[in-house]
Amino acid sequence: MPFSILGKDGSSDARRGTLSTNHGVIETPCFLPVGTRGAVKGVAFDRLEEWDCRAVLANTYHLMARPGIETIKSAGGLHAFIGWERAILTDSGGFQVMSLASRRVLSEEGVEFRSPEDGTAHFLTPERAMELQSDFGVDIAMALDVCPPFPAPREEVERACRLSLDWAERSRRAYRGPGLLFGILQGGTHEDLRARMAAPLSALEVPGYAIGGVAVGESKEAIRAITAMAARLLPEEKPRYLMGVGTPADLLAAVRAGCDLFDCVLPTRNGRMGHVYTRQGEVTIKHERFKDDLSPLDPECRCPVCRRHSRAYLRNLFVLKDFSAPMLLSIHNVFFYLDWMKTIREAIALGTLAGLQAPKEGKIE
Amino acid sequence: MPFSILGKDGSSDARRGTLSTNHGVIETPCFLPVGTRGAVKGVAFDRLEEWDCRAVLANTYHLMARPGIETIKSAGGLHAFIGWERAILTDSGGFQVMSLASRRVLSEEGVEFRSPEDGTAHFLTPERAMELQSDFGVDIAMALDVCPPFPAPREEVERACRLSLDWAERSRRAYRGPGLLFGILQGGTHEDLRARMAAPLSALEVPGYAIGGVAVGESKEAIRAITAMAARLLPEEKPRYLMGVGTPADLLAAVRAGCDLFDCVLPTRNGRMGHVYTRQGEVTIKHERFKDDLSPLDPECRCPVCRRHSRAYLRNLFVLKDFSAPMLLSIHNVFFYLDWMKTIREAIALGTLAGLQAPKEGKIE
Repeated sequence: MPFSILGKDGSSDARRGTLSTNHGVIETPCFLPVGTRGAVKGVAFDRLEEWDCRAVLANTYHLMARPGIETIKSAGGLHAFIGWERAILTDSGGFQVMSLASRRVLSEEGVEFRSPEDGTAHFLTPERAMELQSDFGVDIAMALDVCPPFPAPREEVERACRLSLDWAERSRRAYRGPGLLFGILQGGTHEDLRARMAAPLSALEVPGYAIGGVAVGESKEAIRAITAMAARLLPEEKPRYLMGVGTPADLLAAVRAGCDLFDCVLPTRNGRMGHVYTRQGEVTIKHERFKDDLSPLDPECRCPVCRRHSRAYLRNLFVLKDFSAPMLLSIHNVFFYLDWMKTIREAIALGTLAGLQAPKEGKIE
Repeated sequence: MPFSILGKDGSSDARRGTLSTNHGVIETPCFLPVGTRGAVKGVAFDRLEEWDCRAVLANTYHLMARPGIETIKSAGGLHAFIGWERAILTDSGGFQVMSLASRRVLSEEGVEFRSPEDGTAHFLTPERAMELQSDFGVDIAMALDVCPPFPAPREEVERACRLSLDWAERSRRAYRGPGLLFGILQGGTHEDLRARMAAPLSALEVPGYAIGGVAVGESKEAIRAITAMAARLLPEEKPRYLMGVGTPADLLAAVRAGCDLFDCVLPTRNGRMGHVYTRQGEVTIKHERFKDDLSPLDPECRCPVCRRHSRAYLRNLFVLKDFSAPMLLSIHNVFFYLDWMKTIREAIALGTLAGLQAPKEGKIE
């Protein structure tokens, strides 16, 4: 069994564990920085290694389009191509096909779409998604699923569940390794649909399970409620991966609900936009109030940015569109997320998770 | 004497030395990365420290405009404000006033200009330039000078020399430390004007001298000829700083002409534009020919980018405008420049400078 639960929290469903992969052991709960095209925007891999980051996420859809699977295969796989020798998780490509591609047609067989860049036609099936991820050589591969938008008619969510379950089965049959295949639970905000899909999905006995279809437009309260409900439906002994969520406080709530793996574009995307996470609340660096603020982004943070730069310095660079500003803010945010997950893991180990306060949500006071 | 010559090259006017500053010893010949607003674009300071970079350049003109001298003073000076505890050299602001500001009026007293950002009127005099650099607390301060464009009528260059000499004297009288004041030699391409200015400028006996008015539009051959001619006109025992030059091969030529300090925007600006320096020649990363090139930018380079990434990977990121691409290319270029200067220093020490080949100029074959 690649996943071992090392300890549980007495006050919630949180647990800490290890997930053994072909490229090292991931300590859970774990946040995976997003490297869409094989680079975490603004944060070079040497920093991630230095910070003991064990895994990153990359997007199958983007990589299959460019540079294409042949280039990646000739490099010797995705690890070699991107220069990252620790674990890689790829999504299946389905989410991006549905949200980015034009003229997409969903059928029982798969999803046909045209590339927005060059208009070429593609057909993504579970078998193709598995072949791509096998050729990438990733450590965690995701089954192809159908993620309905929010809000969506119940019938659409039902169909997405049915297709996702069928495709999960086909994915399991097709996947030839070398990594661990995760199935994805859909069902939107409908508890009965999630429950109805969870049972046969769990029966597939793949190495891990993801909660999909969350944070696609619902309220924060809905996200937390669905996450808690969905996590309970998935096998206790398998890692649970909550896809695409969320703020530091969202992550703590999801850990308490029993989730183990996370990815989210928030730290990098927000960093580039000048929005920063701190223990004291969120900082929108361009604001006039930080003009002469000589304190670091977060006085308790030990990242390379907070150790030497002030809000006033970073604000000046950001307002003047200096290239270093989005880079430095992204460095802080990704460090902050990784550090926050370490704090959570330690709290579970020490039995102090119940008292752990999430970083303040909302703008700093 | 802050500058010590440790050894000379037998085959040229090259020398290696040390320049002692309030923030550490600079080993010369030395390249200073440009941090216009107090950040080297795309290259965080922790990397520069790790690479043993001893000094950076910052621009008085940009910093006096924003965040302004009061913010920098209240931070405790420029080192504290930007978070860099090694040496800082600032230009006087004159070059940027002449090239960037609108409605500038040059008089004997100084230069009046309006900020392109907010239209406010400013008056930069030698005394004001010295006050700013004293308040910054920089380690090397530059006298206010007048840098004529190229080509310019001889009369304009003559006036620039006369004003620059007068302002150098006023700068020396006005500067109250804590750093080392450097005077600037002007004279364009006119050897007689440079010679006529060099004698009284040298008589000021400031701690160092710069060669200004180079690389403002002349041919590469002219740049090298003026540099060699100008360097010989300046005191042997003082550090010679060639302002704003150039490619790695330009730097080697200038070292052989007896220059000790350099700054240039090429590694960072070109990095952001996708142009990369290598021992094998210049790489324009977007070119189709690098699409499947799995070799590093420079196989001999030990920078964090060449150690793990290929041209194909970097090209894909760059073509798709991924934020990491200009960052990674800038990291390589700045490392490459610093490493190249180290190679030059070692060659002088070993007596092998005569045989040292500059990195190939022009596009890679």
